[in-house]
Amino acid sequence: LEGINVDESGFNFNIAIVGLGLIGGSYAMALKELNPHQIYGIDMNEKALEKALDKGIIDKGYKDGKIALKEADIVIIALYPEETVKFVKDNINSFKRGAVITDTCGIKTEIVEKINCSLPEDIDFIGAHPMAGKEAKGIEYASKDIFINANYIITPISRNSQENIKIIEKMAKGIGCKNVVCITPKEHDRIISFTSHLPHVIAVSLVNSHLKDNNIEMFTGGSYKDATRVAVINSELWSELFMLNSENLINEIERFEESIKELKKAIQTEDRCTLVDIFEKATEKRRKMM
Amino acid sequence: LEGINVDESGFNFNIAIVGLGLIGGSYAMALKELNPHQIYGIDMNEKALEKALDKGIIDKGYKDGKIALKEADIVIIALYPEETVKFVKDNINSFKRGAVITDTCGIKTEIVEKINCSLPEDIDFIGAHPMAGKEAKGIEYASKDIFINANYIITPISRNSQENIKIIEKMAKGIGCKNVVCITPKEHDRIISFTSHLPHVIAVSLVNSHLKDNNIEMFTGGSYKDATRVAVINSELWSELFMLNSENLINEIERFEESIKELKKAIQTEDRCTLVDIFEKATEKRRKMM
Repeated sequence: LEGINVDESGFNFNIAIVGLGLIGGSYAMALKELNPHQIYGIDMNEKALEKALDKGIIDKGYKDGKIALKEADIVIIALYPEETVKFVKDNINSFKRGAVITDTCGIKTEIVEKINCSLPEDIDFIGAHPMAGKEAKGIEYASKDIFINANYIITPISRNSQENIKIIEKMAKGIGCKNVVCITPKEHDRIISFTSHLPHVIAVSLVNSHLKDNNIEMFTGGSYKDATRVAVINSELWSELFMLNSENLINEIERFEESIKELKKAIQTEDRCTLVDIFEKATEKRRKMM
Repeated sequence: LEGINVDESGFNFNIAIVGLGLIGGSYAMALKELNPHQIYGIDMNEKALEKALDKGIIDKGYKDGKIALKEADIVIIALYPEETVKFVKDNINSFKRGAVITDTCGIKTEIVEKINCSLPEDIDFIGAHPMAGKEAKGIEYASKDIFINANYIITPISRNSQENIKIIEKMAKGIGCKNVVCITPKEHDRIISFTSHLPHVIAVSLVNSHLKDNNIEMFTGGSYKDATRVAVINSELWSELFMLNSENLINEIERFEESIKELKKAIQTEDRCTLVDIFEKATEKRRKMM
């Protein structure tokens, strides 16, 4: 694969964003600041297109993206995992030759495999996962700030051109991300099952473990609020992510269950020494990442 | 018991604060704004007293509190649970007649029982728990802002005077707390084992369930950071709290374990319907408290 040219002085591409929800809308806002040549929005929802045009964050909007795709140097697909694969397959003959396609899904192995198995040789799909979001959906909640200091994970494979990987890295840095790292799709899914999927499992389970919910807010401090923030969850998206990463996630849940059992045992046996050890270990590990 | 007079126009008392750490120091700062008559600081640590005097948040500092206690209308004990009980017992003959003593501990049943069983008739101990704090200790981290919009739980018993309970309520509102509620010590400990102790168990267990800790911060988003914030934990304080509330806490841990098992089963059996139900239940419950 030959890469498209990276213009060192700017980001002078035609960019198509597929799906103008919270994430796609935020990309449009953040990319607008990089002064690209054109930003095309593609969404089946006419209202989302209208809102994006009103906000001035896309130059043109399309319900059917075929025309826009022919012009787009970079295509950012901001759809749910299954829809992401479907979009590429449905539009396989409409991408510009040499185009770089990327996505925003929270799982990567299946996405990268399924998309690559049907891709023409002159089109490069580079999987990516911006670790940014909100407990809300829809373009009305979009904000260019969600990327500021966020982590951006890119999951290249051997067929991807180094030039194109650099474009995605440059874009990620350009929209404000702090750490931009490349790992394999498999590694991504294993790590993310711990750093993202497990915290969501925990938040949801914590909220649901409380039987009554009368006046609970009168008795909470920061710990409960923070621990349960992501329990306001997009059911459709997250059930899909969990199903597509089930093996890794089950492993992580079970390791967490062991960890909690160890702490419980220390309380049950009134073993304050072990409890203090457990606390000190956690404090040290958590401090390292601050 | 006869209560001391509440001055409607202000908070014109002599206040002694025992323990000038994060919490005690924050009380001193916040109470200073209410223009009380005098604020006395009592701490065995001379450096803490010096810092409090330098900041101008106490009027006088004492290593041995006997003189200050004779003058204090209100005594706020900001020590760990066992030390709180010990302080009252050690100073049982030094409190001013008619004084109102309160504390700041995260467990209440044992504190309230142990202190009341030895208290002279003309001294009122009213247990309280300001749900405010930080993952840090020491007066250098103190801030009057920790109370802003926090919850303040008061756990009166039948011997407490209504007048004195009102003083504590007024103080809590005065320093910025939003919800000031009265419940029994037993109810407090049961509810708090869920809203505060369990989230700390979870944060610690989540951090410890990760085997390696290399570069984890490159792959985290808000969910992991928020879920583990309180894993930086004061080992001495929290091991004491957990031991003193072990029965309630074990119950809550086990209910949480059931909740997580239910979610795990839905993933294992690829039961996306149940998973969506679980997510929607959590979303609805969590939304109610925003």
